[in-house]
Amino acid sequence: MDVRRRVGLNLKRFRQEKGLSQEQLAFEAKLHRTYVSGVERGVRNPTVTVLEGIAVALGVPSSRLLDELEEPRTSA
Amino acid sequence: MDVRRRVGLNLKRFRQEKGLSQEQLAFEAKLHRTYVSGVERGVRNPTVTVLEGIAVALGVPSSRLLDELEEPRTSA
Repeated sequence: MDVRRRVGLNLKRFRQEKGLSQEQLAFEAKLHRTYVSGVERGVRNPTVTVLEGIAVALGVPSSRLLDELEEPRTSA
Repeated sequence: MDVRRRVGLNLKRFRQEKGLSQEQLAFEAKLHRTYVSGVERGVRNPTVTVLEGIAVALGVPSSRLLDELEEPRTSA
């Protein structure tokens, strides 16, 4: 799985677990909402400092945003 | 600790554990040696795709490059 997609899926999961909207997360991380949306969709390529800022806003270690994910199994 | 410094220290540790020179790692990760040196010194701000390329070359999950590190205790 492309790392940008992986980061996006992890980010969305943690954001929703925290009950934050993209807007709220963007505000906390001092980013634009459309940038957060782009990261979640896997179309942005954040640097480690941006990733750290997002992780701090989510209250998770930045390494968790790079966690491996199981490929969703396509139904037969 | 600044995330770039943390990435640099983790990278150097994994690279040395693998017995790779900066030159060899740069070749494997299709980067310039001076860029690898800059990441190790904490003066570069790699994107997640560059981090993934380095991690693949090292044979470690990219999340490990963002592992938390204990601040080195300054001797009294």
